[in-house]
Amino acid sequence: MARPSSDASVIFLPSGRRGRFARGTTLLNAAQSLGVEIDAACGGQGICGNCQVVVADDAEGQHDDKPALNLPAGRRLSCLARVAGDLVVEIPEDGQQQCQSIRKNAVVTDIEILPVVEVFVVAVPEPDLQSPEGDAQRLCRALEKQHQLAGLRSGLHAQRQLQAALLKGGRQVTAVVRDMAEIIDVRAGCQEQLYGIAIDVGSTTVAAHLCDLASGETLASGGSMNPQIRFGEDLMSRVSHIMTNPGSESELTEAIRRTLGELVAQLAKQGGVPEDDIVEITVVGNPIMHHLLLGISPIELGRAPFTLANSDSTTLPASELGCAINPGAYAYVLPCIAGHIGADAAAVCLAEAPFDRDEISLIVDVGTNAELLLGNRQRLLAASSPTGPAFEGAQISAGQRAVPGAIERVRIDPETLEPTIKVIGCDPWSDDPAFLQLVPGNGVTGICGSGIIEAIGEMYLAGIIDSSGRILGDQAERSNRIEADGYTYSYCLHDGKQRISILQSDVRAIQLAKASMCAGARLLMRRYGVETVDRIRLAGAFGSQIDVRYALILGMIPACPEKSVTSAGNAAGTGARIALLNRASRSLIEAQVLEVEKIETAAERDFQDLFVDAMALPTDHGFFGELPRRNFVG
Amino acid sequence: MARPSSDASVIFLPSGRRGRFARGTTLLNAAQSLGVEIDAACGGQGICGNCQVVVADDAEGQHDDKPALNLPAGRRLSCLARVAGDLVVEIPEDGQQQCQSIRKNAVVTDIEILPVVEVFVVAVPEPDLQSPEGDAQRLCRALEKQHQLAGLRSGLHAQRQLQAALLKGGRQVTAVVRDMAEIIDVRAGCQEQLYGIAIDVGSTTVAAHLCDLASGETLASGGSMNPQIRFGEDLMSRVSHIMTNPGSESELTEAIRRTLGELVAQLAKQGGVPEDDIVEITVVGNPIMHHLLLGISPIELGRAPFTLANSDSTTLPASELGCAINPGAYAYVLPCIAGHIGADAAAVCLAEAPFDRDEISLIVDVGTNAELLLGNRQRLLAASSPTGPAFEGAQISAGQRAVPGAIERVRIDPETLEPTIKVIGCDPWSDDPAFLQLVPGNGVTGICGSGIIEAIGEMYLAGIIDSSGRILGDQAERSNRIEADGYTYSYCLHDGKQRISILQSDVRAIQLAKASMCAGARLLMRRYGVETVDRIRLAGAFGSQIDVRYALILGMIPACPEKSVTSAGNAAGTGARIALLNRASRSLIEAQVLEVEKIETAAERDFQDLFVDAMALPTDHGFFGELPRRNFVG
Repeated sequence: MARPSSDASVIFLPSGRRGRFARGTTLLNAAQSLGVEIDAACGGQGICGNCQVVVADDAEGQHDDKPALNLPAGRRLSCLARVAGDLVVEIPEDGQQQCQSIRKNAVVTDIEILPVVEVFVVAVPEPDLQSPEGDAQRLCRALEKQHQLAGLRSGLHAQRQLQAALLKGGRQVTAVVRDMAEIIDVRAGCQEQLYGIAIDVGSTTVAAHLCDLASGETLASGGSMNPQIRFGEDLMSRVSHIMTNPGSESELTEAIRRTLGELVAQLAKQGGVPEDDIVEITVVGNPIMHHLLLGISPIELGRAPFTLANSDSTTLPASELGCAINPGAYAYVLPCIAGHIGADAAAVCLAEAPFDRDEISLIVDVGTNAELLLGNRQRLLAASSPTGPAFEGAQISAGQRAVPGAIERVRIDPETLEPTIKVIGCDPWSDDPAFLQLVPGNGVTGICGSGIIEAIGEMYLAGIIDSSGRILGDQAERSNRIEADGYTYSYCLHDGKQRISILQSDVRAIQLAKASMCAGARLLMRRYGVETVDRIRLAGAFGSQIDVRYALILGMIPACPEKSVTSAGNAAGTGARIALLNRASRSLIEAQVLEVEKIETAAERDFQDLFVDAMALPTDHGFFGELPRRNFVG
Repeated sequence: MARPSSDASVIFLPSGRRGRFARGTTLLNAAQSLGVEIDAACGGQGICGNCQVVVADDAEGQHDDKPALNLPAGRRLSCLARVAGDLVVEIPEDGQQQCQSIRKNAVVTDIEILPVVEVFVVAVPEPDLQSPEGDAQRLCRALEKQHQLAGLRSGLHAQRQLQAALLKGGRQVTAVVRDMAEIIDVRAGCQEQLYGIAIDVGSTTVAAHLCDLASGETLASGGSMNPQIRFGEDLMSRVSHIMTNPGSESELTEAIRRTLGELVAQLAKQGGVPEDDIVEITVVGNPIMHHLLLGISPIELGRAPFTLANSDSTTLPASELGCAINPGAYAYVLPCIAGHIGADAAAVCLAEAPFDRDEISLIVDVGTNAELLLGNRQRLLAASSPTGPAFEGAQISAGQRAVPGAIERVRIDPETLEPTIKVIGCDPWSDDPAFLQLVPGNGVTGICGSGIIEAIGEMYLAGIIDSSGRILGDQAERSNRIEADGYTYSYCLHDGKQRISILQSDVRAIQLAKASMCAGARLLMRRYGVETVDRIRLAGAFGSQIDVRYALILGMIPACPEKSVTSAGNAAGTGARIALLNRASRSLIEAQVLEVEKIETAAERDFQDLFVDAMALPTDHGFFGELPRRNFVG
């Protein structure tokens, strides 16, 4: 059957999804509109090279707008290639979004259990013709009389359940009461098991923990990729996607809510818990995730002065966030601290509780931005430093996310300059004969954030780079792993199926990121009026994966005795669990957030000076005690 | 293609809807599951005879479970006929639900305008990097400073609108504030027009009024049939439908919400008002409509002791009731008084305000149940009397709803016993030569509620029936309109295409209904301790259509000077408008409802005595002054 020629058919493999599109549509847009996930880290600007697709060579149906990057034969960038006729587009395996190996596990912390949702077993008097009030009113009076709960209101879901439960339970029911204020559900007889879920919505991954509200026990944990990645890997790419596609924020909102819904269903199954018994959710996330999840456009967060639409905590029906749990359940979203310092930072603050200590803590949540908290019970300061995605492996020539095949640990022999590496998904190090057999399918594929930190730290310790960050060409005499690369030099970490080198530009990218982070911390210290801090806590998935020693060697954080630098694990997730399990913590963090002094690094004049000072690798490492290998070369 | 023989294809005409059904399914159930509307007044019990369909005589595809009523050739009752094979089912025109002519118009009443939703134009300070709070917090501070509105919270819809409005309005916005507590919307610049809709959900019809919240003016009124009629004409049929089909309450809920949504959209269009400017809805209805609309099962309202799930007022997002108006809008549902005395009675109480008067008022809202209010500022009593649907034309041999073709007015010449009638849809009376030309298409088709009242009143005045309600056979000598009908007699009102007679059983049905209503009123008077009342108000569509004089002649209401008996119009709708336009009225009626003394007629021992006493037609009519024709015969 002849079709009008104005649009063309596009089929995506391996999913088999298909649709008709106007000529000129980019393949990336076509894929996105069909829900086909393509990794587009740069937000479709032809930069990252991640969105490669394969189009049959003889197809006349597509053409590129401008010459693409140096791509393998048959590959095109889907963000640049446009539909010119009927097409079959294959997304190669490496272009499909991969499941990241980082599972943000819930850390066991002492949490006083004081859940926001509680159960009360109550006997409700029989109705009679003389007292024509509703059963909901009768239930409220019984709760007041039998449990001293005054002034309760009943939610609609509870009203819908009430009379059947009274009938089934012989007028004895279990009232599910939220925040000592609202009856959100009613069950027949005595049914006391209640659960909640704490969710940490990250830009890249979403992590969730299913907890027993009475014991506080974490019954199941799970994670999922943030599906918004197909609209841009980093936050600003997603905001710019929304700016250039007005109205598209609802797609991002729906995508994350769908993922939340799936994750919640998965956790319920995993924990063997009926969804109806899950009665509360807490959510944390950075400001842009926070706004998108709530259906608020994050555009103002993408430009100065980075204004939040709402900084307070938000309580809304859990169903509005796509979570099919108990229909009476609510979601509590923690407050944001400032335009760059979100509900995740508030959760870190709640988990770490620096405001409860006399010592001065520096808490760094390392991610695309480094969120910084500094202070003690007297005073607390917060800032966000734009580290960029280098720590996550982006902007690094061989960088990749922490997925199997990525180098995560590096040691360099200072005598021979030979490296030893450890790869995610393979237990032995590369000097073990079993390494080559056990390394994952595609061999060593790249280097992830913690691997880069260690590689550069080790290159510095081995004298391959100097404290200015320059890769020293004169060391090429000592090892053929140091190679000229135009006017600069590179260091080859691995030469297998793929050749993985650290380029001079990689070192510079890491220097910029760590300088930003460290300058932010130093700015807070200057504002507080201290030269040193008593303790440093590294939070976040990346923060808990890196070896503290290399963070100090690189000068990612201000100088501090090594033993005083510890990992805080997934502190944001812990904060979400605290807010779930202890209702008093909610008003506590809401009050703290208002007290925190927010420092906007971009607006502070001395930030630039501190930033420049922090670019170099520190030369004085004496403070962190005995290094096992101190024999610096050069 | 061969089909499995376990189910059969059924096509309904004229709609053409079709589906496959298990053999044994009733045609009514099949129709309902396809959304084909069939009038099933008795709820599918084979009693009312309304659900007739035509099935080709030679069709072997259907069989009746038991012998049907005496039906015209080719007709079957769809509630009894079952699918036995492939079928084409035609729904005759008289079986399709008709649009009732009663439009409950909004009555102009003096309402002090004090709307629950108000606008405040406000200049919001620019954000800056030094104050990182959200724009919502900045807006709240500005409203407090500029309008003395303290402690406002902002709803999610307002948060979603806020930043775009600030940008468009140059930081000047209009905040839409509900109940001095929540910002429900934000608009750019100065946009002050706000509207609301008051809705009266009746068992048969739904009426709605679109009002300007600032002026109180009613801009548009509209009505719609209650689509739940296909599940049973009267309330108890619907409850028994739900009892026999557990879980089906959600179908009734969805049906009424869909109708509300359509009605609201229609009113917005009619009034030329953008749906986004409609920011509040108030809803009244009897207890069963109230529960079904809120998604609460009404089963307990169908059996003693008739317990409401919830008697308090309810506030919920308007979107949950299916109304696509402003996404931040709420619906306020008035409280119920008791299991038989709903939010509609509360609205009547609010509109009539007997609690503000020294005189003792009796307010009767006439419908399937008669809701009764009696009292003054000292004391207020309420009851419901089960009149049954006779006043609405059901249970009457020639009865029908008030649609074109129905007799609505009757006069009988006491000399000749010849009747003169007036028919809905035709202005001239039947003694006008133009009558036969102007009468609607099918001629005179039946008699509606107000017509029956007048017919029986006139038969009594003309001496055709005595005060016991007996049609006097000895009057047959005077007119051949009085005919023997077995052991009793009938009176022929009209002999045209259809022959319309008042049977003895019709008189008895009306006597039962009016006795119940009058006994309820007398019971309240006895409880209050009065022999007479100062004024009587007849409310409801039927109450405002009947001629007050005939209500007195029949003894529907206690004796009272005719001039003190007046129509209250659609007082429930007026009450809904008051609750819409005056926020103080909400707490007023919520408090009054708790104060009202509820009398359950079924539980009162003297109700039966009063009921028996009230069966006769009153003989003493002297109190209501000069009747134009007092020449009673006999």
